[in-house]
Amino acid sequence: MTRVPDEGLVLVPGGTLITATPEEGRALAMSLARHTIHNIQPDLDVLKAGRPKYATNPDSLTAAAQVVAIEFQTIAAANNYWRK
Amino acid sequence: MTRVPDEGLVLVPGGTLITATPEEGRALAMSLARHTIHNIQPDLDVLKAGRPKYATNPDSLTAAAQVVAIEFQTIAAANNYWRK
Amino acid sequence: MTRVPDEGLVLVPGGTLITATPEEGRALAMSLARHTIHNIQPDLDVLKAGRPKYATNPDSLTAAAQVVAIEFQTIAAANNYWRK
Amino acid sequence: MTRVPDEGLVLVPGGTLITATPEEGRALAMSLARHTIHNIQPDLDVLKAGRPKYATNPDSLTAAAQVVAIEFQTIAAANNYWRK
Amino acid sequence: MTRVPDEGLVLVPGGTLITATPEEGRALAMSLARHTIHNIQPDLDVLKAGRPKYATNPDSLTAAAQVVAIEFQTIAAANNYWRK
Amino acid sequence: MTRVPDEGLVLVPGGTLITATPEEGRALAMSLARHTIHNIQPDLDVLKAGRPKYATNPDSLTAAAQVVAIEFQTIAAANNYWRK
Repeated sequence: MTRVPDEGLVLVPGGTLITATPEEGRALAMSLARHTIHNIQPDLDVLKAGRPKYATNPDSLTAAAQVVAIEFQTIAAANNYWRK
Repeated sequence: MTRVPDEGLVLVPGGTLITATPEEGRALAMSLARHTIHNIQPDLDVLKAGRPKYATNPDSLTAAAQVVAIEFQTIAAANNYWRK
Repeated sequence: MTRVPDEGLVLVPGGTLITATPEEGRALAMSLARHTIHNIQPDLDVLKAGRPKYATNPDSLTAAAQVVAIEFQTIAAANNYWRK
Repeated sequence: MTRVPDEGLVLVPGGTLITATPEEGRALAMSLARHTIHNIQPDLDVLKAGRPKYATNPDSLTAAAQVVAIEFQTIAAANNYWRK
Repeated sequence: MTRVPDEGLVLVPGGTLITATPEEGRALAMSLARHTIHNIQPDLDVLKAGRPKYATNPDSLTAAAQVVAIEFQTIAAANNYWRK
Repeated sequence: MTRVPDEGLVLVPGGTLITATPEEGRALAMSLARHTIHNIQPDLDVLKAGRPKYATNPDSLTAAAQVVAIEFQTIAAANNYWRK
């Protein structure tokens, strides 16, 4: 088994939900989702084997996008929606 | 591989959640969802190949509409629901 | 291709989330969901062809009801839940 | 076609999200979900034909319970969680 | 048909969302979800027949856990997150 | 049947939603989701038998990540997003 590197197993990369911009917040949302999956399944070979299956399946991509949307709700609220 | 153009890989087009109108907020919600998918799967050929599958399947369309609804929750809150 | 009429492609019919009553808010929630789908798939023939499939499938109806419930969360919050 | 009676097509039975108790709020959540489905599919015969399918399928019941949970979030917030 | 006992058909057991502890709030979340299902399908024999199917299926368990998570959001908000 | 140990059946490990850091909050979100499943299905042998199925299936992993995202929304709100 090739294990996901340690930095991929940190649950909240950077250790905070606060970001400078919506763009960075969005990147964090994607990162949070990915790291959850790395923690549930830390075997890189399994993850790579699954990628062709889900990354070419529209329904899988929609489901992944939904998780990102939910993570982003939390991050956007944490940042007061980056209102000026 | 034909790559999604760079502007399609920006996570938050326009760089802000604040919009002038609900209509623009809704368009942003759709755009956020689409750009997430472009970031997960940046190969345009794969995306185009998947479109006939999901765009003619009511359940896939419902799932896509749900992601837009979730994104819109965030954007609407960011804009205080465009209350006057 | 028979295209969804232009008014079906407006993302937020009426241009506002504010409604006089919960009943109207609920109708708007259904309308928002439907218009998202029209924007993703503007071909009326495809939409009509899909209807018998999803409108007779309880799981599809449940999924559609979930999208409406999520849209309604946003609209209800926008209207302060129509509290007196 | 046997049509769902008119009262089943009202989107918000009672016309308000405010209820006296959590129990009534929960009943309203179930009612909202059911009336959405009646509006999408007003043919009682189709609805009845689908019932054996979903009401005996645990995954369908879980999905239905999820819609009720989402509707209840809205109603509970509207009622300030019936805090004293 | 063996009917779910009357106490299983109460929608909000205890009649309140307020609990002394997060642990009790979590138990209430599970209970709310279960009672919704009892109300949709009050036939105990059908429920028992379905259990082996969903309780051994990881995807079904994940779906059930999601409903509990959504119910818990409401209950936790109602209790101001049991902050001291 | 090998039963999940008692500590795995506590619904809210630690008895509070308050954590010192986002990282700990995220770990709690994963823990809450896992403990829900242990309570629904306390038979360790069944849980272990299901793991190869879901831990190698991208769609199952996405679904699990979604539950964690929802739990985390609650925990992050409880902690005022760990804002300084």
